[in-house]
Amino acid sequence: MAKRVYLFNEGSKDDRDLLGGKGANLCEMTSLGLPVPFGFIITTGTCREFFQAGNKLPTLLEQEYRVALDLVEKKMGARFGDPENPLLFSVRSGAPVSMPGMMNTILNLGLNDEITEGLAKKTGNPRFAYDSYRRFIQMFADVVMDVDGEKFEHEINQYKSTHGKTLDVDMSADDWREIVRIYKTLVDFPEDPFEQLKMAVEAVFLSWHTPRAIVYREMNNIPDILGTAVSVQSMVFGNFGDDSGSGVAFTRNPSTGEHQFFGEYLFNAAGEDVVAGIRTPLPVEALGERMPGVYDQLFKTQALLEKHYRDMQDIEFTVQEGVFYMLQTRSGKRTGRASVKIAVEMVKEGLITESEALMRVSTDHVEAFLHPMVDPAAKTDIVATGLAASPGGSTGKVVFSAEEAEDEAAKGHSVILVRRETTPEDIHGMRVAAGILTELGGMTSHAAVVARGMGVCAITGCDALSVDYAAGTATTTEGVVISRGDTITLDGASGEVMLGDIAKTEASSSDDFQVLLSWADKYRRLKVRANAETPEDAAKARELGAEGIGLCRTEHMFFAADRIDVMRAMILSETREERQTFLDQLLTFQHDDILELFKAMDGLPVTIRLLDPPLHEFLPQTEEDINALAERIGKPAEKIREIAGRLEEVNPMLGFRGCRLSVVYPEITEMQVKAIIGAAVDATEQGCRPLPEIMIPLVINVREIRLITKIIDKGIHEILKEKNISIPYKIGTMMETPRATLGAYRLAPEVEFMSFGTNDLTQMTYGFSRDDAGKFIPRYLEKKLIDADPFVTLDQRAVGRLMEIAVNESRAKKKGIKYGICGEHGGDPRSIRFCHDLGLDYVSCSPFRVPIARIAAAQANVGVEPND
Amino acid sequence: MAKRVYLFNEGSKDDRDLLGGKGANLCEMTSLGLPVPFGFIITTGTCREFFQAGNKLPTLLEQEYRVALDLVEKKMGARFGDPENPLLFSVRSGAPVSMPGMMNTILNLGLNDEITEGLAKKTGNPRFAYDSYRRFIQMFADVVMDVDGEKFEHEINQYKSTHGKTLDVDMSADDWREIVRIYKTLVDFPEDPFEQLKMAVEAVFLSWHTPRAIVYREMNNIPDILGTAVSVQSMVFGNFGDDSGSGVAFTRNPSTGEHQFFGEYLFNAAGEDVVAGIRTPLPVEALGERMPGVYDQLFKTQALLEKHYRDMQDIEFTVQEGVFYMLQTRSGKRTGRASVKIAVEMVKEGLITESEALMRVSTDHVEAFLHPMVDPAAKTDIVATGLAASPGGSTGKVVFSAEEAEDEAAKGHSVILVRRETTPEDIHGMRVAAGILTELGGMTSHAAVVARGMGVCAITGCDALSVDYAAGTATTTEGVVISRGDTITLDGASGEVMLGDIAKTEASSSDDFQVLLSWADKYRRLKVRANAETPEDAAKARELGAEGIGLCRTEHMFFAADRIDVMRAMILSETREERQTFLDQLLTFQHDDILELFKAMDGLPVTIRLLDPPLHEFLPQTEEDINALAERIGKPAEKIREIAGRLEEVNPMLGFRGCRLSVVYPEITEMQVKAIIGAAVDATEQGCRPLPEIMIPLVINVREIRLITKIIDKGIHEILKEKNISIPYKIGTMMETPRATLGAYRLAPEVEFMSFGTNDLTQMTYGFSRDDAGKFIPRYLEKKLIDADPFVTLDQRAVGRLMEIAVNESRAKKKGIKYGICGEHGGDPRSIRFCHDLGLDYVSCSPFRVPIARIAAAQANVGVEPND
Repeated sequence: MAKRVYLFNEGSKDDRDLLGGKGANLCEMTSLGLPVPFGFIITTGTCREFFQAGNKLPTLLEQEYRVALDLVEKKMGARFGDPENPLLFSVRSGAPVSMPGMMNTILNLGLNDEITEGLAKKTGNPRFAYDSYRRFIQMFADVVMDVDGEKFEHEINQYKSTHGKTLDVDMSADDWREIVRIYKTLVDFPEDPFEQLKMAVEAVFLSWHTPRAIVYREMNNIPDILGTAVSVQSMVFGNFGDDSGSGVAFTRNPSTGEHQFFGEYLFNAAGEDVVAGIRTPLPVEALGERMPGVYDQLFKTQALLEKHYRDMQDIEFTVQEGVFYMLQTRSGKRTGRASVKIAVEMVKEGLITESEALMRVSTDHVEAFLHPMVDPAAKTDIVATGLAASPGGSTGKVVFSAEEAEDEAAKGHSVILVRRETTPEDIHGMRVAAGILTELGGMTSHAAVVARGMGVCAITGCDALSVDYAAGTATTTEGVVISRGDTITLDGASGEVMLGDIAKTEASSSDDFQVLLSWADKYRRLKVRANAETPEDAAKARELGAEGIGLCRTEHMFFAADRIDVMRAMILSETREERQTFLDQLLTFQHDDILELFKAMDGLPVTIRLLDPPLHEFLPQTEEDINALAERIGKPAEKIREIAGRLEEVNPMLGFRGCRLSVVYPEITEMQVKAIIGAAVDATEQGCRPLPEIMIPLVINVREIRLITKIIDKGIHEILKEKNISIPYKIGTMMETPRATLGAYRLAPEVEFMSFGTNDLTQMTYGFSRDDAGKFIPRYLEKKLIDADPFVTLDQRAVGRLMEIAVNESRAKKKGIKYGICGEHGGDPRSIRFCHDLGLDYVSCSPFRVPIARIAAAQANVGVEPND
Repeated sequence: MAKRVYLFNEGSKDDRDLLGGKGANLCEMTSLGLPVPFGFIITTGTCREFFQAGNKLPTLLEQEYRVALDLVEKKMGARFGDPENPLLFSVRSGAPVSMPGMMNTILNLGLNDEITEGLAKKTGNPRFAYDSYRRFIQMFADVVMDVDGEKFEHEINQYKSTHGKTLDVDMSADDWREIVRIYKTLVDFPEDPFEQLKMAVEAVFLSWHTPRAIVYREMNNIPDILGTAVSVQSMVFGNFGDDSGSGVAFTRNPSTGEHQFFGEYLFNAAGEDVVAGIRTPLPVEALGERMPGVYDQLFKTQALLEKHYRDMQDIEFTVQEGVFYMLQTRSGKRTGRASVKIAVEMVKEGLITESEALMRVSTDHVEAFLHPMVDPAAKTDIVATGLAASPGGSTGKVVFSAEEAEDEAAKGHSVILVRRETTPEDIHGMRVAAGILTELGGMTSHAAVVARGMGVCAITGCDALSVDYAAGTATTTEGVVISRGDTITLDGASGEVMLGDIAKTEASSSDDFQVLLSWADKYRRLKVRANAETPEDAAKARELGAEGIGLCRTEHMFFAADRIDVMRAMILSETREERQTFLDQLLTFQHDDILELFKAMDGLPVTIRLLDPPLHEFLPQTEEDINALAERIGKPAEKIREIAGRLEEVNPMLGFRGCRLSVVYPEITEMQVKAIIGAAVDATEQGCRPLPEIMIPLVINVREIRLITKIIDKGIHEILKEKNISIPYKIGTMMETPRATLGAYRLAPEVEFMSFGTNDLTQMTYGFSRDDAGKFIPRYLEKKLIDADPFVTLDQRAVGRLMEIAVNESRAKKKGIKYGICGEHGGDPRSIRFCHDLGLDYVSCSPFRVPIARIAAAQANVGVEPND
């Protein structure tokens, strides 16, 4: 039979699986010679035995821990269950992985009527003794005996009101004794300390199977078999008088990252009082002034722990009657700014390696270097919460249309554009807005994608709002009315909408951050590209480290005011000749735009996707707009309505779009090829090195690729022959339909690259329309039917499996294909890790996600999960 | 080196791969001792050598076939290239599999100026000789030398007009000789017979690579490597005089199937004349009257061949100067009625086994027993062609709305309902229509699915028609206007729309057909269920052999006029309480309908799918209908518009539907469970044995199933406990999303059956909306980008692969799950074969497809592809 009980001096930090995380750390500190109140740990293996036996503790267990208990008593100089000189315990659960939903700590275990009386005598402080006792009963009843804690609070309040007391400090020893008496009428409380201990151990084990713990394990793939350990530790008291106290401290400043010991201390207070914030703590230096010896011990201890754990530590300690005790140490939480500074400085100090430094920075933390962020401390008046669609914080005047946004911005105002949803026609307003807020749409809705692309803060799917354009208001479910011209603040990182101007921390470039990025580039294998259409976005992306464009959505070039009518006229053409006239005009626009892109991305690959959206997306919707268009392009409104009606679709996402357009209208593809290669020729003549990669979207089989490649090759050769010039180019396919992934081995011989369009692939794999899923995804998350929005974090189980099939089978067929991802997942760290593991060559994301992708790619390559 | 040339007495019918199908049959007949004009065959292996050598005949080949030729000359008593006693050849391609696009036959090979003169002398018939010669030059130039045949026709016509001739019979020997002279100015014709033969052999080999042949092979998975054989056969002539002639005959009547020798004969005519129908042939018995000995030989031959090949034969024969020759035998084409009769009778005659009989009947043939069919001979005035959505033929007066349809039908008129598309609101009109014709929609559109379900003839996606409701007309692209009240005929088997009343053959039950079906039931492993919602459909399905209901779409029960408003009121409810009121009303409807279903399907399983479509599908669309509804249910039109607007979706197919409804509105599921189990209890109390199977639609993961199963189980147990009764029931899932199939192994532990909803699965795997794909699928078929509409024939490569993953992985996880298919593919023979091979337990299809599915399932189990 394996050893079931370990004393604190019998384990180390490497024994997490056996002793739980908390227990392993207590052992480690004990081995370091630190003054840890002594105790023992019951192993996770015992927990497994407990379940196997049908929730029964092993017969010999009590005997085993009684042996350990004897040794603890000797070391602590007090005895468990002895009224003369009582030893009390705290009992905690401790799983190998930190896990919510497990049992809370029980403090002061070992008290009963007799022992409390003894404790009162020994300490000369009956109020302390009875307060501790009533707290213990309440805690024990709540977490071990499953009695509703409300009942106890109710009794205290009743007692206070009938006795004219208000605060806990008004309560005397006798008052607490009376409360204990009342409590005992509510619960069948066990007086035997050993019985208490046994019940507590059982309760810890049973808490492994609370619904919340089960769901958490399922969500995080934690094996059910692990089980939890139980740590039993001697109590020490910081509330014994003025020579006692409790404190928490950080080995470095958790807010700025400065290398400076930083903490708080409360004299004559228990540990939980510091955390609860009942009194305002003093800076930890106050302890130095009053008890320099103890402070010196504390200071040395924290320095030792940081060096030992090689990370900034968050420590808890207690001083009892002038004696210093360490209660806990763990990696300290920190702000983004601090995490970068600490990581970089620790490398300089020789404490950690560059790759370790990379693992210390969570990608969420990096946001702070890219956008202004709402100051968490300043948050107030949160009136609605939507999806955190594009990070950053911004404040501005509310407008309800793109036109208003332009007008107000022209007057120098910062504006927040509020819409039910956005369409490509709103782009001009989105460009000038400081923030975007929509009632509808998910994480990959038009508003979300465009905002992230522009680096503008956005909240989408905020269905707590009801937008009324006519009235110029947005009303929350709670009845708060936001009107045109009101000032509001958006927190794009949390999805919160606030009234008024809330303080923000500015985006700040920092040398440390640049150093970290340079390390990321050194350690990553995945290339990072950006999704961009405009020269400005391309330049920004390059500045942020993009190594090419992974997705240029050519249709975006046709939405500008001076072009959309030409595009519409092309779509509304009734003969091939008529269509050709307008295609010739579009050719000029497209050529010029792509030329600028090639210049901005000189020497880097630019992946250009052929026209993808359904044609009706370009046509006007309202009667008014149709009539106006009719007048502008000189076509009867009746005719426009008729053609638009014919083009309308029930499910446009699964309709006449993508390469299906090339199949039916090869002349559109011919025009696009002319524009791309014509631009490449011009760029070359202007001294640049363009690297065009032409991407065919929404492919279902190899015959489409063959047909379209023929059109592309023919167009290219005509131009190159005429110009007598040679341009390197690639033809590839976007992998968006499940069918393309399942047949990738058949596509392989015909393509040079495959880029996973995981937005569409997710839509089709789930049968979730990204435009409509906002209606039920929140309910799915709320009911824990899914762990994450699959449009944000790539679903590895099905979507990822299709990608895996595609990569493995096409690679087996042909070497040298380049693999990329250009869906929104290309900027999501967890998805980037998956792409790395799958062996893709690059990810492509919004320009502002590029630095995050660089770090995530490095973290994936360094190999260990970030420890956040 | 393998033998390259085989004489007709050196092979057998088993040598198809080596000698081609045609060659193998000639050898077989020769071995049977039948009088086949002798010849030889150049092997398919020689063809492969030819390609490997860069389209060059092997050096030794000519030497080899000259040896064979000597033997042929000896046997035929004439010599190739000898003007005194010339032997002529027919040269044919012959692939192992019959294949369009290959080279045509060349007749009379071996003629040149000198030999023609000799032939004229020998036969004493110069006109015959020169007519043969000019035919040969024309044919040779066309198929070997690739000269446009039009040129030759043009010369003949010019000659005739300048010489005052009209018909070929007006042409004398001299006329044909002059034509030959003119022909020779058009083409560099080789005079050397051996050169002719060599060129013909090369031309046969090269024709293996015509584009048409390549595409055909790709479509039918015929390996490119096979190659074709060349058969070279001595010519015999039926046009030598009155003691000569040609005939074709069938060993049984190909139209009725009667066991009676049946054929046609032309005196003094070549074989091609019989086929071309220049003169009206006589019944073959005429030969018996004039040449009883020859007839006797013919009759014995046909009887021998049928017995030998064990199938009805289609034979060609020629009589030259009183001598009987067999030219060809092959399985004869036959009508559906005949195929069934012949198959069943041949079993009775002991000629074939029951399972062979099953393989002799093509499922297309079976249609004739289920629906009236348009008589192919009577077809005329075809004004438009659409998709053959639901088989059968029907004639009626054109109406343009469901209401008109009802009115006209009430007056006793047969009506054809013509719509742009149909929606559930048209059902009442569809029920009374004799046929349905829609401008839009594919093979799985609403119109198509409903029509097939009702067994009503339908043509969908007929985009050659432009329907104008207001004008009451449907205008074809050619300008033909079909007006309200006009009589038209639909051929649902071909998709043809005809003006007027076209003759039809009545659907006729036949004893033979019933016998065949009983054999099918004996030999199949797959069970066959039907998709049905009404007791009538269920009864019909059962009568046609359905072994349960595989899909009952509960939503169909809410579309009736007296229910739809309750459904709408439920959807428009603003509180759970309000919704419950209407749910309680719906409960009654649903309960009663399902009770009837259970009674109709007493003792057989009934799979009931929980509510599936997006809720907005139930709401009215037009302002007028909204206002009317507002009045009827007493809710402000404004409110209705608002809620309808909120429910509207961009891509409803990927939206808020399926089990997502159960997640958000569990009360709907609770109502449905109450209806189902309540009905089961009542059915049981009425002495029936209901076997409900509750099916959860559009699942993406196991947590949905767990959540909904909990709701279902709870509802069921409440009722069963209250009634103190036990009802066997199953809970299962529809497999429609790619994600469900990829995660089937995770779903397995929670379900008792899985039914593949291949309509949706195809939509998502392809990214093809079945409502919209009509816009591009025809172009895809036309450009050969796909081989078949994936909504008609299951795509095995991707959709089938997902099914395979699902079945294999879930079966590995848990034994005993029942697998079925309930998409439209469940009634498609090719798809049924796939389902059989995959090891599914049942297919479910429209009631009228049940007999076809029974036969297809048997054919799949018997194992060999049907030989049609």
